[in-house]
Amino acid sequence: MKRFGARTQGINLAVQAEAKPAEVRTGAPMDRLAAFLRRDLEQVEALLAERAASPVATIPDLSGYLIAAGGKRLRPILTLASARAVGGKGGEAVCCLAAAVEFIHSATLLHDDVVDDSDLRRGKAAAKNVWGASASILVGDFLFARAFTLMVETRDLRILDILSRASCVIAEGEVHQLAALNNAELSVGEYMSIVEAKTAALFEAAAKAGALTACNDERVAEAMGEYGRRLGRAFQLVDDLLDYGGLTSVIGKAVGDDFREGKQTLPVLYAREAATAHDRAFWDRVMGPQREQHEADLAHAIHLIRSSGAADRTLEAARLEAAAAQAALAQAARGPFSDELAGLADYCVNRAF
Amino acid sequence: MKRFGARTQGINLAVQAEAKPAEVRTGAPMDRLAAFLRRDLEQVEALLAERAASPVATIPDLSGYLIAAGGKRLRPILTLASARAVGGKGGEAVCCLAAAVEFIHSATLLHDDVVDDSDLRRGKAAAKNVWGASASILVGDFLFARAFTLMVETRDLRILDILSRASCVIAEGEVHQLAALNNAELSVGEYMSIVEAKTAALFEAAAKAGALTACNDERVAEAMGEYGRRLGRAFQLVDDLLDYGGLTSVIGKAVGDDFREGKQTLPVLYAREAATAHDRAFWDRVMGPQREQHEADLAHAIHLIRSSGAADRTLEAARLEAAAAQAALAQAARGPFSDELAGLADYCVNRAF
Repeated sequence: MKRFGARTQGINLAVQAEAKPAEVRTGAPMDRLAAFLRRDLEQVEALLAERAASPVATIPDLSGYLIAAGGKRLRPILTLASARAVGGKGGEAVCCLAAAVEFIHSATLLHDDVVDDSDLRRGKAAAKNVWGASASILVGDFLFARAFTLMVETRDLRILDILSRASCVIAEGEVHQLAALNNAELSVGEYMSIVEAKTAALFEAAAKAGALTACNDERVAEAMGEYGRRLGRAFQLVDDLLDYGGLTSVIGKAVGDDFREGKQTLPVLYAREAATAHDRAFWDRVMGPQREQHEADLAHAIHLIRSSGAADRTLEAARLEAAAAQAALAQAARGPFSDELAGLADYCVNRAF
Repeated sequence: MKRFGARTQGINLAVQAEAKPAEVRTGAPMDRLAAFLRRDLEQVEALLAERAASPVATIPDLSGYLIAAGGKRLRPILTLASARAVGGKGGEAVCCLAAAVEFIHSATLLHDDVVDDSDLRRGKAAAKNVWGASASILVGDFLFARAFTLMVETRDLRILDILSRASCVIAEGEVHQLAALNNAELSVGEYMSIVEAKTAALFEAAAKAGALTACNDERVAEAMGEYGRRLGRAFQLVDDLLDYGGLTSVIGKAVGDDFREGKQTLPVLYAREAATAHDRAFWDRVMGPQREQHEADLAHAIHLIRSSGAADRTLEAARLEAAAAQAALAQAARGPFSDELAGLADYCVNRAF
């Protein structure tokens, strides 16, 4: 298999200089990547705090509540690690980009919470329940605008092009998802195009633009983008499965949000495909246009999703996406950051257990 | 008075070649400018329609309802005319910029309607009353993202810098305004800083960036930006006065929105300053934190605003802004487009009658 941009030696040195081996050899891929990228991530955190500052107190208060107090920083880590994987050395441009990506993601979360009327985010009351929906909408707009000022600071029109297009696709996907609510006829293909737009587009843009901060090889950047896109699909499929408690148990995350909102996600589409006439009537009642839901319905939905094999099928689809992510990655980069990114794809799937 | 960039001869020729004299010598400044700029404006309209297209039908439906069906195109006209005034010849970059400015404005309107819970926009039901608040939020996000893709197409980092900063300031101003609702202690200075942010910043950015598409003289661009900023302040002051029926009568626009929302605008601040203890109690009741309003209160508020001289004072403040706009303009440009832009400042004030 042909590999581009194998600058493994240089990367190894950079990693050894930056993170102590003991710190990085243990733990989950996210923790190891965070340790590898510690200095860059500190700069990103400083940018997130600095650029959410404003004399209008609601802005730092609300955005600090969401950003400073939570989040795995998956997208900034993806951005930074993609740059390192193709030979990058960190620095200001990629940190601006990583912070911009996190701001875009945060703006989306603030607006999503209003649109979905979700009361919980990252285990706490959603910002809209603390400051109100109006403040969440407007602070979301502020963070989105701040993301663009950060990208302008990179002075790189390729980055601006990639991220502005991705922002369009994300918003388009959100509108598409809204239009598809309670649509019992949603096809798997249409569901995947929503996932592609609302989640995978930002993962793809983060990885591709991250790579472009470090290398000028368009093929390498495309392959890193494909890695990000496939990772994003795997991530969202597992997220949708976790909303029904994952494969085996109910974990920390609040369960049943998608169910209550009538979102037709892959576990539901697969369960409907396998359903008897009796079960189909259940799905029509609880997820159809009327959305008539009673107290025991979520537990029954979880039972059907597991017993029909829909949970296993969803996980298998996520596994295939993770494998595709790893194949694309192998085209673009070798070395410890590439290894960690490959592990990250497995981690996204293994969250389901 | 020193004048920069006096390329009057060339502009005169361009104008004569593009608009028939009979068409442009009559009518209000907006109509004459629209006639002068007809070809550019057609290109802007084409861009607005083309870039609001999407396979997700809600996006063109909702944005078409707002954009295609209404609006004076004041901001695109300001952008295009600012470029022409300093020697520009139209063309793709300035049209992309003008369309981007209109998209940013449209996104703001969609979000404003949700935040203000306004039921009317441009004489029709607000988009949120037709498609719902969620669709208005998300289509607003889409238009904002599209604005950035249009700006990236200009390949001009100065434009991206100006507009992305302005977008931050606008959102900041909107949050500030939200925080100031029902705040009876709001000062005139704080009110003006809200106006500066939520309205004048986009006017300033449109005029400055427009000028930069046509000339590289930073002083000229700054002066055009100052023209736009002052024009925006005059425009908003008159808008706030029109919400109380203007100086003399109730015109087409729905009256009393700001009153019902408890927005402390300049006519109210001036009326409070001049109020007797009895009138002050009225203002405290209807615009204070409790916002206790009865049926005849709006009419009484209008009466107080006019009889106390607050309406005249507001108009006088707008006149001063318009004069400052014209002074800045005279520093930057001469010729027919400059003359029309000077007339536009008068027009913004004269709307109050």
